[in-house]
Amino acid sequence: MEDTPQDQLGQLRASIDKLDAALVHLLAERFRLTDRVGLVKATHNLPAVDAGREEAQFERIRAIARTAGLDEQVAVRLLKQVIHEVVQRHMATARATRAG
Amino acid sequence: MEDTPQDQLGQLRASIDKLDAALVHLLAERFRLTDRVGLVKATHNLPAVDAGREEAQFERIRAIARTAGLDEQVAVRLLKQVIHEVVQRHMATARATRAG
Repeated sequence: MEDTPQDQLGQLRASIDKLDAALVHLLAERFRLTDRVGLVKATHNLPAVDAGREEAQFERIRAIARTAGLDEQVAVRLLKQVIHEVVQRHMATARATRAG
Repeated sequence: MEDTPQDQLGQLRASIDKLDAALVHLLAERFRLTDRVGLVKATHNLPAVDAGREEAQFERIRAIARTAGLDEQVAVRLLKQVIHEVVQRHMATARATRAG
């Protein structure tokens, strides 16, 4: 007896939901670390954005995406979105530190 | 002897890079699964977007973000970006299946 399309979708979605839970936990840890980066930068008056660091990150992400079989441009677009969120938080941290 | 700000940034960034590698691998697996979802949908002429499924995903992600200590709105914005990429791929798959 073959699985119905709905059975197949249900099984795939259960796996996707587990990956999403893992992704959220990793992202939470990543934001905890970038919050600490933001605090170090704000404390020492370092700029919120570091273009050289970002370029190196994108190169690394492209290489990992190739190995993992993920479209490089998709990987870069998603990392850019994550970094955009991080920079917003860093600028808020810098404002709060200057105000404190 | 205290770490310099550059030492502190270097240590934090090494951890961030490891998390990014893990994120890319999880995303690669997630896209493999959603490609299979796209194929099931295209084969059975099911719609590419399922609003009920997306709403349930966002609710779940918000709950996991709260547990993980990640800003819920950040988690939802990032998941929306991932789903946007998935829908683009599903529509391309549907077009290719109809053309085939």
